[in-house]
Parts: sequence; C-alpha cells; structure tokens
Amino acid sequence: MSKGKIAIIMGSQSDLRVMSEAAKILEELEVNYELTIVSAHRTPERMMDFAKSARKNGFHAIIAGAGGAAHLPGMVAAYTTLPVIGVPVKSSNSIDGWDSVLSILQMPGGVPVATVALDGAKNAGILAAQIISNFDDNAAKKLENYKNEMREKVLKSAEVVETNGWKSGKVGF
Amino acid sequence: MSKGKIAIIMGSQSDLRVMSEAAKILEELEVNYELTIVSAHRTPERMMDFAKSARKNGFHAIIAGAGGAAHLPGMVAAYTTLPVIGVPVKSSNSIDGWDSVLSILQMPGGVPVATVALDGAKNAGILAAQIISNFDDNAAKKLENYKNEMREKVLKSAEVVETNGWKSGKVGF
Amino acid sequence: MSKGKIAIIMGSQSDLRVMSEAAKILEELEVNYELTIVSAHRTPERMMDFAKSARKNGFHAIIAGAGGAAHLPGMVAAYTTLPVIGVPVKSSNSIDGWDSVLSILQMPGGVPVATVALDGAKNAGILAAQIISNFDDNAAKKLENYKNEMREKVLKSAEVVETNGWKSGKVGF
Amino acid sequence: MSKGKIAIIMGSQSDLRVMSEAAKILEELEVNYELTIVSAHRTPERMMDFAKSARKNGFHAIIAGAGGAAHLPGMVAAYTTLPVIGVPVKSSNSIDGWDSVLSILQMPGGVPVATVALDGAKNAGILAAQIISNFDDNAAKKLENYKNEMREKVLKSAEVVETNGWKSGKVGF
Amino acid sequence: MSKGKIAIIMGSQSDLRVMSEAAKILEELEVNYELTIVSAHRTPERMMDFAKSARKNGFHAIIAGAGGAAHLPGMVAAYTTLPVIGVPVKSSNSIDGWDSVLSILQMPGGVPVATVALDGAKNAGILAAQIISNFDDNAAKKLENYKNEMREKVLKSAEVVETNGWKSGKVGF
Amino acid sequence: MSKGKIAIIMGSQSDLRVMSEAAKILEELEVNYELTIVSAHRTPERMMDFAKSARKNGFHAIIAGAGGAAHLPGMVAAYTTLPVIGVPVKSSNSIDGWDSVLSILQMPGGVPVATVALDGAKNAGILAAQIISNFDDNAAKKLENYKNEMREKVLKSAEVVETNGWKSGKVGF
Amino acid sequence: MSKGKIAIIMGSQSDLRVMSEAAKILEELEVNYELTIVSAHRTPERMMDFAKSARKNGFHAIIAGAGGAAHLPGMVAAYTTLPVIGVPVKSSNSIDGWDSVLSILQMPGGVPVATVALDGAKNAGILAAQIISNFDDNAAKKLENYKNEMREKVLKSAEVVETNGWKSGKVGF
Amino acid sequence: MSKGKIAIIMGSQSDLRVMSEAAKILEELEVNYELTIVSAHRTPERMMDFAKSARKNGFHAIIAGAGGAAHLPGMVAAYTTLPVIGVPVKSSNSIDGWDSVLSILQMPGGVPVATVALDGAKNAGILAAQIISNFDDNAAKKLENYKNEMREKVLKSAEVVETNGWKSGKVGF
Repeated sequence: MSKGKIAIIMGSQSDLRVMSEAAKILEELEVNYELTIVSAHRTPERMMDFAKSARKNGFHAIIAGAGGAAHLPGMVAAYTTLPVIGVPVKSSNSIDGWDSVLSILQMPGGVPVATVALDGAKNAGILAAQIISNFDDNAAKKLENYKNEMREKVLKSAEVVETNGWKSGKVGF
Repeated sequence: MSKGKIAIIMGSQSDLRVMSEAAKILEELEVNYELTIVSAHRTPERMMDFAKSARKNGFHAIIAGAGGAAHLPGMVAAYTTLPVIGVPVKSSNSIDGWDSVLSILQMPGGVPVATVALDGAKNAGILAAQIISNFDDNAAKKLENYKNEMREKVLKSAEVVETNGWKSGKVGF
Repeated sequence: MSKGKIAIIMGSQSDLRVMSEAAKILEELEVNYELTIVSAHRTPERMMDFAKSARKNGFHAIIAGAGGAAHLPGMVAAYTTLPVIGVPVKSSNSIDGWDSVLSILQMPGGVPVATVALDGAKNAGILAAQIISNFDDNAAKKLENYKNEMREKVLKSAEVVETNGWKSGKVGF
Repeated sequence: MSKGKIAIIMGSQSDLRVMSEAAKILEELEVNYELTIVSAHRTPERMMDFAKSARKNGFHAIIAGAGGAAHLPGMVAAYTTLPVIGVPVKSSNSIDGWDSVLSILQMPGGVPVATVALDGAKNAGILAAQIISNFDDNAAKKLENYKNEMREKVLKSAEVVETNGWKSGKVGF
Repeated sequence: MSKGKIAIIMGSQSDLRVMSEAAKILEELEVNYELTIVSAHRTPERMMDFAKSARKNGFHAIIAGAGGAAHLPGMVAAYTTLPVIGVPVKSSNSIDGWDSVLSILQMPGGVPVATVALDGAKNAGILAAQIISNFDDNAAKKLENYKNEMREKVLKSAEVVETNGWKSGKVGF
Repeated sequence: MSKGKIAIIMGSQSDLRVMSEAAKILEELEVNYELTIVSAHRTPERMMDFAKSARKNGFHAIIAGAGGAAHLPGMVAAYTTLPVIGVPVKSSNSIDGWDSVLSILQMPGGVPVATVALDGAKNAGILAAQIISNFDDNAAKKLENYKNEMREKVLKSAEVVETNGWKSGKVGF
Repeated sequence: MSKGKIAIIMGSQSDLRVMSEAAKILEELEVNYELTIVSAHRTPERMMDFAKSARKNGFHAIIAGAGGAAHLPGMVAAYTTLPVIGVPVKSSNSIDGWDSVLSILQMPGGVPVATVALDGAKNAGILAAQIISNFDDNAAKKLENYKNEMREKVLKSAEVVETNGWKSGKVGF
Repeated sequence: MSKGKIAIIMGSQSDLRVMSEAAKILEELEVNYELTIVSAHRTPERMMDFAKSARKNGFHAIIAGAGGAAHLPGMVAAYTTLPVIGVPVKSSNSIDGWDSVLSILQMPGGVPVATVALDGAKNAGILAAQIISNFDDNAAKKLENYKNEMREKVLKSAEVVETNGWKSGKVGF
C-alpha cells in the first residue's frame, strides 16, 4: 500500500493530453494520486481552497500543469508549504512554450516551484514518487526498478544495433 | 476634480523605483490614484480582497507591476472585471525581462491584462488616464495637452539641431 | 442599449481569421463596435484620418491588430488619446510572433498601447468591454456573467473528471 | 532535531556566491545539510560515487548548482532515485543564463530534475525543506512560520506606504 | 561636388549618440546630407510631410534611426518610394535591441526598409553612399578608397602581430 | 527601357522558392535583372569573381539570398562597393530563421548589407528598384503606381467589409 | 584502407533518423566507424566505460548526438582526451533545438566539445574525416574530391539556370 | 618537439583579448602555433590565400575567432579541408553573442565548423591539441596531465570546503 498521495491538477480538461502522463507513471510506480481540474484564472477561489487544505487532506506533493501565462503552479505554491511541481504545457496559446516555462520557473525568493521540462508530465510524476520514496520503501523500490528497466532497454537496443548494424532491417528508426 | 480613480499596486517596495512613474504622470494628468503594496505570492488573500472589492471601492482601473514570474496582474484580473494594466518590471531576479513580459502578456482567453512595455509604468499611467478620459473631460483635455507638449518638444529640438547643426555645442547628446 | 462603441481595425482582410474573435465577444457582451480595414503601411493617410477623428466619431477604444513589423496600433496611438488595444497577430510573415509582440508592446514613453497576448483578439474585446464597463452598467453586468460562466464551466468539468476518473470515456481530451 | 538531511553540491568554489543562499535558508529552517564541491566535467567519477551513495548516506534530496552547459544536476539524477533540485547559475561563461536554465530543465523522460529559477538557490533550499516537511514536523512548522513572516513583512510595508505616501521620506526604494 | 543628398532622421536628440556616426562617415565620403529630428509617435504629421516631400526635396535616400517599438523607418517608407535605411538603436527602453531590430526589419511585402546592424549607423551611411555611387563617380571612388584603407589597416596590423608576436608590448589589445 | 540592372544570386537552386519573388516584382516594375546560383561555401571563388566584377558588368545593386549561417550577402559586400541587399531565407537547416537573419544583418562597421525581412525577397526587389529610381524615371513612376495600387486594394477591401459586414459571405478570410 | 576509426554514439535508437547521416558520409569518405547506442542518463556507467576506453580501443574521434538537455557529448568529453564532436538533435522533447544546442555548445573551460549545426550529423562525419585527414592521405584525398564535387554541382546548377532562365521547366525548385 | 602545428586567426587585433587564451593553452600543452590577423570582410583575398595554403603550410587545424555576423570560420572552411575550429566572440557589436554563435555554428551540409562556446578560445586550443594528439604522443600525454590537474584542483577545493565549512574564512568566493 502506498504511503504517499499526490495531487495532479491542471487548468483545463484539454491539458489532460499532456498531464495524463503524470497519472500513468504514478500508477506504474504504485503511488496514490487524485486528479482534478483547477484553474488559477477561472476558479481562483477553488484554487485557494484546494491549495490551503492540501496538506491536511493528506497530499505530499502537488503536480500542477499550465500553459501560456501559467500562474497555477506558482499561485498554489503561494498557499501551501507542500512541494509543488510545475509542468509547463505547450498549449495552443503559447509562444512555442517559452511563456509557460518562464512563468512557472522564475518564481521569486520564498515561493519555489519545482519545474520540469516543457510537457514533462511524466517526469513530474517520477519526481513526486522520488519525494515520497523518502518515507515509502515501496516507491523507492519501484523507482529503482524503473531505472534498471530504462538501462536494460538501452543495453538491449545497443546490442541489436551492434549485432545487426544500423542499416539492417532489424533496426527501426 | 477628477471623476476617476486608479489603483497602483506592486509586489514589493523595491518596485517603486519603476512604479512611481505611474503615480507621477497621473498627478500631472490630475487623475486620482491610490498606491499600495500587494504581493500575489506573499499576500495572496490580501490580493484577492483587494481585487474583489476594487470596483465597489470606486476604482476604474488597476495598474499592477511585477517582475520575474509576474503573476500579480493576471491574478488580479482573475478576481475583477475592471481593466487591469500590467507593467512588466525588469527586477533583479528576471532573465532580461522576458519572464516578466511573457507571464503578464500571455493571459488565456477570458482574462485579459492590458500589458505595457518593460518598465513602462509611465505609459501605464497614461493608459489609465485614457480609460478615464471616456467619462472625465478634464482627463481628456490634459491628455490632449500632454500630446501637444510632446510634439512641441520634438519640434523645438528639431529646430535647434537644424539651426545649429548637430556638431554645435548647443546640441547635447 | 450599449453606451459605448469600439472600433476594430486591422491591416488586411486576412487578419479577420484572428480579429473576428474580438467582434464575436463584443456581440456576446452586447457592446457596439464597428470593424474595418486600415493599413499603416499601405493607407497611412486613411489611418491618420481614422485615428484623429475616432473620439469625435463616438469611439471609446480602438482595437488594432497587426503582424510582423506591426506599426498599426502604435501609430494609431500617436494620433489619438483614446485607449488603443493592440493585438499581435502571428501572421505568415512573422518570426513565430516575436516581431508582432515586440513592435506593439515596446512603445516609447508617452504613447501607450494596451497589448494583449499573441492572437489574443478575444481578450482585446473583453478589455474593451471592461473599459466601457466604467460608465455602462450593462457591460459591467455582462462581464460579471461571463466571468461566472467561465467558473461554472471549470467546476462542471472538474466534477465530471472527479466523478468518472480521467480514464473514463466520459472525459474527452 | 532535523530528521532530514540535504546535500548541496556545485561544480566550483566560485558557485558559492550563489549556492550559499541554499545553505543559509536551510540553517534558518533548521534542516541539516552537507555542502561540498563536485564537478560533472572535472570529477565525473567523484560525481558518480557521490550520487550512487547519496541515499544510503542518509540524504533525502540533493541540491546541485551549475552554469553554462550545466550537466551536474542531470547527471546526478542519472545515478540516484533521490529528488534532485537543480539551480541554474548565471556563471561568467553563460549566455545570459539561457544555457544554464535549458540544460538543467529539459531533461528527457525518466530522469527528472526539479529546476528552480536562475540563481534561485534560496528557493532550492526551501523546496528541499518542503520535501522533508512530509516526515519532519519541525521543518513543516518552520516553513509555515517563514510563510507567515513573508506575509507580515509585505503587510507592514503596505501599511507604511499607505500611511505615509510613497513620496514620504519614510518609504525607501 | 556631391551629386547625391541623404537625409538622416531620428526620433530624439538622444539618438545622436548613435546616429552621428552616419553623418561622420558621409562627411568622410564627401556625400551631402541633412540631419534633423522627426518622431513617428510624437510628430506623426511632421514625419508624413517630411517623407512625402523627400524625393522632390532632392534626397536620394533616407536614413532613419529608432529604438524599442521602432516605427519611424517603416512609416517613412510608407510615405515615399525612396530607399529607406533603418538603423535599429539599442535605446534605454529596448529589450537588448531585439524590439528595435524586429520592428524595423520585419516589414510587410510592398514596403521595404533596408535594415543595418543594431546601432549600425556608420554602415547606414556607407550604404547610402553606395546607393549614390551608382550616379556619382566621386562617391564610388571614395568608397573604393575606404575599402582599400580598411584592408591596409588589417594588413598592417597582421604584420605587426606576425613580426613582434602577440605577447610583445607593441601589440595592444 | 530600364536604365538599371540588378543581380539576383542565391546559394542553391532550392532558394528559388523564395528568391523568385524578387525576380517577379522586378519584372512587374520593368527593371532589368540577371539571376544565377552562387554559393559562398561551395563556390567561394566564383563568388569572388562575381562580386568583384559586378559594377563593371553594369549592375547597380546585388540581391543575395541565403539561409542558416548565411555568409553570401556579407561576403559579396566584402568584394564590392555596390549596394548589397540580403534576404534571410528560412531554409530547412535554419533555427526558425534566427541564424539567417543575424548572420546577414549584424555586419561589422565598414561593410553594410541592406537586410530585408525573413523570406522578404519581394521587398528586396522593390528596394533594388528604389535604388535605381534615383536615376531611372520609369522605375520611379512604376514604384509610385505600385504604391497607389496597394492603397487602392486596401480601400476596396475596406469598402467591401464596411458595406457587407465581416460576417457576410462576400468577405473571405 | 582507412587509418582512422570514428565512434558514432547516440542516446536512443530514434536518433538514428538524424545520426545515420554521419555514418553515410563516413562510408562515402572511406573512413572506418563503429556506431552504437549509449545514453548519458539511462546508461551512465556504459557511457563512462565507453569514453574511458575509446582511445585505447583505436578511435580517433567520437561523434555524439543528443537532444533536449543533451549531456552525452559533454560527459563523454569529461572522460576522454579524444576530440568529441557534438551533434545537437532537434528531438521531440526539445524547445525548437535551443536546449540541444546550448547544452552541447556551452561547455566550461577545459572540456571542449566540437559542436556542429542543429541536426548537422553529416557535417559531424566530415569533421571527423578532416581530423583523420591529418595522418590519412586517403581521407584527405576523398575530402578534396568531395569539395570539388560540391563545387561542380553548384556550377552545373548555375549553368542550367543561366541557360534556360529560372522560369524554364528545366529548373526545378 | 610538437609534431602538429595550429593556426590561430582572428578578424582584428581587438579579438586578442579573447583569442590569446587559445595561444596560452597551446603553449601550456606544448603544441606549436602561429597567430595572425585575417579579416573575412576587410581582407577576403588574404583569407582565401591563407586558407587555401594552410594544409601545405603544415597546419593541422585552424582556430578562427570572430564576432557579430562572424563569417571568418565558415569562409575559411569553404577553402580548406583541414578541421576549422570556430570561436564565437562576444564583440562590442554583437547582440549578446547570439549572432556570433549562430553565424559560426549553423553551417550548411558539406562545410563543417567545429564550434566552441561563446568566447571559448581556451577550449578551441584544447580541441586543437586533441586533434593533434592522434599522431603526437606528447600532446596526448600533456592533455592527460591537464585533465588530471583539473581533477586534482576540484578535489583539493572540495577538501578545503569540507574540512573548514563554507563559512570559514579559508574558503573564498
């Protein structure tokens, strides 16, 4: 049983295209999570309520995804002392993602947001599991396994390329 | 007597270096204003209270300045239907101002912020006066005068340069 | 009956793809508007005439959209003391929108343009309605309703996701 | 007594100018830390040994600062499943900080780095304390106090400005 | 006697810091010029009059310098069919010069501006002389001499470095 | 009969996609031109020969288009005192056109290139005609006509929109 | 028989889309190479072993391709004194290639990476052959031939365009 | 005795401020070099002669530094099949170094330039020594020593910090 619980929030249902990757990896790592829609600009009071009660509601970290002038992660961080993980989303209204990245990353002193790569929801999930791994041995073990599997996959792929040559029909790209 | 009233807010006292320009031009244009400190990330509830009551407190526009991941203007706009004017401040923690500009400008559909140039607090003040000029003839007249003075200054400067030549000691640069 | 009137102008008919969003939202907010084509570089004198007479023609704000080296909003602002709202358009000749944004936003002291997000014509319309809401109670009420509807939509969407789970067929993305 | 322990590492002694802020805030928040020099490019094997043994050496998170082509945070993350917090440093060989930010933030799927703002070592320390606050009540309490103090400071500053006016000699900027 | 005449204009006297380089090189190349102040945003009608009468006033090219949202070169080009040379000025209100460059360079089809490097007023002067060299043999000869002198200077410098070695006291840098 | 002659060169046949626009507008403006392929990096000696003999071969300006690390315009300018017009091409190997723009625009003092917008070959042709218009009345007249036609087109388009309304089926976009 | 041997490595099989160009040109230039998969973040120890033994395994240069936060080239360079050629790959998780370029190019003093253009794997192969050409006359000869063929192709293309005219059906673009 | 010889060239004497670092490190690594001034734009024929004869003059690599629209490295590469190492210089006329970097890095297929970091002349020297180390055992040994010394310096620095603590007076920063 997972000892930790993660919140995954985003400004609109359309962000699920990116943010569902956080949910998927948390399931794979056997970490509990709850996912919902919270908009900084359209439901600011819902956001405040959510953030202020997150710790006492049993969450250990909050993953927040947003695009364009992305205020959700930073504003959630204004209301809680839990670690907040920000996912810059390359939304349709974004200038190639630069606005999403900068408005999440460049938080003022005192109110950090742990920012991951553009559209990096999967890494947000892994980071959340790493935070939980400090007190949840199952999460720690799962993360170790995941790392090993990534390594094995590369080694297997290297072996295929080395054995067959990159021009071989056995090596797709 | 000014019929309009403008709020000027900023995240920290240090922003006064830039934001005082908005106050100065409003005084010159004889438009009432109130100026105070409101931080999105450090006093989010004060921000909410301020923004939600701004219209009934008699304000006609809100000028909000912030730097880095600048959420103040956009979050104020989330709480009010007054026009919000955002001033991107090139603060010490900003990446050459790009973060300030993008996190104020790139608001999602439904929640506009009227963004002015980087450190453009003076123009924020003029824009506020222009908004008020729609129902305040004194502001309209003052703006017209201000435009005329700007033109006269350039014409005078052109005359000096044309009469004396740019190399003359009478033309400073 | 709307007490305010907004002008919507753009450099070419092809900008209607973006700029029609301003017209649509103004209709939804029951604010009068007139829309036409004015080019800074191809009809500079028409632009001058338009801008100089805009206030006495009963307009309360001018929404101007342009792309690339986008001079229309700033030059209109040079000729009028009305609030000018600039919409940077990501036109076919633009470098990812950066030229449109910077040549509208970075106006010199004395001549502000209220800039909205790249392709943010809808927000330009809302901002215009906000300006008018200072003296037009219907616009103020409509804006309040619009804000409420946006909130309700998010809350409904959150409820669907929370009730059914993001993987459910009932949650599209 | 702090139940958590944080590692603070950086590529060169000169990074202490920025990275010491992480140490200072951890001391203020009463969180244990160890600080040393580890270079990805000059001591890659030391880095590997450090990262691989970090969890069993009792660390709960690693703060890594680097500038330019900043590989330290990402490579440490390659060797451990602990949360790694990356601080992009605007070092003398950096192009305005963009290289530092992008080479830390844009990690591939599977190997996250929790990135904070450019030169944001203070926020890295707070984020580390937030991670520890999940199992260390003292850290949680200290973070809450810190948040309250930040709020109080802004409220005090607002009071001074409102009482005296921004032009008063009592308001420095 | 020079057969050509060049206009040098700029938005404000402070631009003389950069724009005087255009005047200096035209003097060196023995090309006539007139220099004055014309502001697109503060004296739009003066700009129109200037541009519309430039050809019949005997000018063969117009050098226009401006910074930030730099509309002067493009708007002058809207009113004349003379070649217009734009100098992006890194003015105090510019974001590292990017706004100046893009708002001069990215003109729409039909209305070109010959853009030179940021603060490249000297090259604007040379380009103007090159335009005149098509019908003024003295300008052509002067340009040829100037090119030769540039080459000789480099050759001399190479000789000093090769003869003495770069570490020698005779090689300054 | 055209009194001027323009050279249009580019690094590869594939650049004709963009550069043919320069040829087309010169034909429309009845200005003579010659078009060929010259590569700075693949045929540097051909480039040298071409540039050094361009003036005595009767050319009055050279339009040079290139993408990526675009050295053709600047190197041609190194070999001639004719006006050189550079067209930054957004080629397949370019980083969104930024490399093309900067490596053409940012020429050192003494060797100017008249740079036009990204993919702005049409404007390069018009600029070349403007240069020739100084001594060729037919080119001057054609340019004047072209400007008038552009204006008429916008006025016609404005009339259609104003008469029918933008929602009418008669207004395409 | 080739006297030199080049290693081509990349983080994932999907990079073969770009990196196979390096292999192809090395085959054309008759230079030996070995190609395999090595990931900095997923197989850091394999990377270390590979890099540390590269010289004694007979390699003369290492071509390493990576995208996003691209640490492979720089980390390989940390472990070897062979020349390392870095290919920034515009991978799916990259912000338009800027992260790939900067995290490869901006290496700290002491640990160089010879960076080529974005997706420039072909040039990486040629650069490797140039390095080998210092002690392998066949490579030198092949490179000379390759340069000649590039020139001939351009000259042929120029001839076709000049003879037939760019509008002719014989000139494709 | 060094078996290799490196050329170090730059466009102007003022580049020695940056480029002398290449000379210094080559002396430290006991690699022969010759240094002189060659300008692509001011002495294009000298550049051609230099580049075409470089191989038969005994050079094994050419280090070329330039700023702004930096054409020297790429044009030298157009004339030779030797490895060319490009150093982007942040010269006074550069836009924060971006023009220098892009106009050196983004070479078209067929003509590579081995680009190092902005102002990275020291790394250019090391890279040149690495190229020579393929056939010069002394250079290989010197590079190995240099790598060891870099490591030792970091280890020493780490020891001082760990022993004394970062706040100790013995740790400068």
